[in-house]
Amino acid sequence: MTQERPFDLLNRSVGQQVLIRLKNNMSVRGKVTSFDAHMNLVLENAEELEDGELKTKLGTILLRGGNIIFVSPV
Amino acid sequence: MTQERPFDLLNRSVGQQVLIRLKNNMSVRGKVTSFDAHMNLVLENAEELEDGELKTKLGTILLRGGNIIFVSPV
Amino acid sequence: MTQERPFDLLNRSVGQQVLIRLKNNMSVRGKVTSFDAHMNLVLENAEELEDGELKTKLGTILLRGGNIIFVSPV
Amino acid sequence: MTQERPFDLLNRSVGQQVLIRLKNNMSVRGKVTSFDAHMNLVLENAEELEDGELKTKLGTILLRGGNIIFVSPV
Amino acid sequence: MTQERPFDLLNRSVGQQVLIRLKNNMSVRGKVTSFDAHMNLVLENAEELEDGELKTKLGTILLRGGNIIFVSPV
Amino acid sequence: MTQERPFDLLNRSVGQQVLIRLKNNMSVRGKVTSFDAHMNLVLENAEELEDGELKTKLGTILLRGGNIIFVSPV
Amino acid sequence: MTQERPFDLLNRSVGQQVLIRLKNNMSVRGKVTSFDAHMNLVLENAEELEDGELKTKLGTILLRGGNIIFVSPV
Repeated sequence: MTQERPFDLLNRSVGQQVLIRLKNNMSVRGKVTSFDAHMNLVLENAEELEDGELKTKLGTILLRGGNIIFVSPV
Repeated sequence: MTQERPFDLLNRSVGQQVLIRLKNNMSVRGKVTSFDAHMNLVLENAEELEDGELKTKLGTILLRGGNIIFVSPV
Repeated sequence: MTQERPFDLLNRSVGQQVLIRLKNNMSVRGKVTSFDAHMNLVLENAEELEDGELKTKLGTILLRGGNIIFVSPV
Repeated sequence: MTQERPFDLLNRSVGQQVLIRLKNNMSVRGKVTSFDAHMNLVLENAEELEDGELKTKLGTILLRGGNIIFVSPV
Repeated sequence: MTQERPFDLLNRSVGQQVLIRLKNNMSVRGKVTSFDAHMNLVLENAEELEDGELKTKLGTILLRGGNIIFVSPV
Repeated sequence: MTQERPFDLLNRSVGQQVLIRLKNNMSVRGKVTSFDAHMNLVLENAEELEDGELKTKLGTILLRGGNIIFVSPV
Repeated sequence: MTQERPFDLLNRSVGQQVLIRLKNNMSVRGKVTSFDAHMNLVLENAEELEDGELKTKLGTILLRGGNIIFVSPV
């Protein structure tokens, strides 16, 4: 194990924009307002993207962590 | 971890309309009446949507949390 | 968490007809006689439906909860 | 919770014929000789069915519970 | 629960030939030399079958239990 | 069990480039900055590869371990 | 349970060549240097095979156990 832990990245992402790739090939972008140990996340002003372009405005969403491939600070 | 937690969003959604995206590509809209730690939810006046349009009226449903991608207050 | 819990809906459904949507796109209708914490259910006079029409009479079935998307009182 | 529990149906099925629908769309029929808490089952004179017709005689099988959609006494 | 348990079948299968159906539609035949509580199995002289015919000789294999649909003594 | 453990490889990979194959057929390359017991990993300067060629620059990502097939030091 | 246990095969495979079949139909060959209770394995000089022929040299890999169908000493 390392001193730095993966969830530290989520912690630093609170209040920041992230891009999230999901298992069903959806991509979602939004501002993290909270997360938990299952990687469940609340995003504000979330947007569904397709080929990097805005597809649907989703508003505030509670995203289940089990659907996530990766989370990336924008 | 943050002070605010993802499930706080569900707590504030009780008695409110939410839109839920499921893993099988279904979307469901309805009023939350209860939820638990597995994100199992009871929705009243639930409706199945297709391309944002009403497809089927489902009435009251107990939805298993494991099928959820995201929950969004409407 | 709320006072009312999702499994209360199952409790009130014992002896009642429910419609169940499964992950494999099957729909099943029947009278609940028992359930457990995994959402395993016994249904009496269960029927498999296709497009809302009776496809097969299944009789009494023990349905594994893990296959369920939602349960709806009829 | 109810007094009667779903696994009571399995208990009463020992020594009886059951029909089992599996997640891979297989159906299996046979006489239950034992089961456990994971719904693992041993069936005697098990037969694989296709469209309700005998496809293959399987003899005695230990079936993993995780593959089951439902179990139905015949 | 019954006196006899499903894993008793595995216990009696040690040193015997079994036929195993897997979730990916593979069938494997071989002699059981050991198993554990996850239904992980070691088979000797294992053979992959296709339509009941020998496809590939696999030799000794450690098979993960999670892939199994059923195990049948030959 | 062996003295050397698989996670020792991750430990030695901190600060190093790795190539990761994911279940959805994506390949990702980047420098490991942290990991945890679920094989969740943070990668810096991560790149999505297709047929070994750069497809998309991802920047810093938190990758969920459950998506991984293998991790390979480059 | 048996005296001999399935993981004993892995233990004897340390320092030896194994062939591994994965759920995504990949086959991997390499020398085991370590493993753990989840069947996570480190392989040296790992090679991806297609129809038994070398497709890609992978070098050293940490393979997640959950992807494995079977492991076979070569």
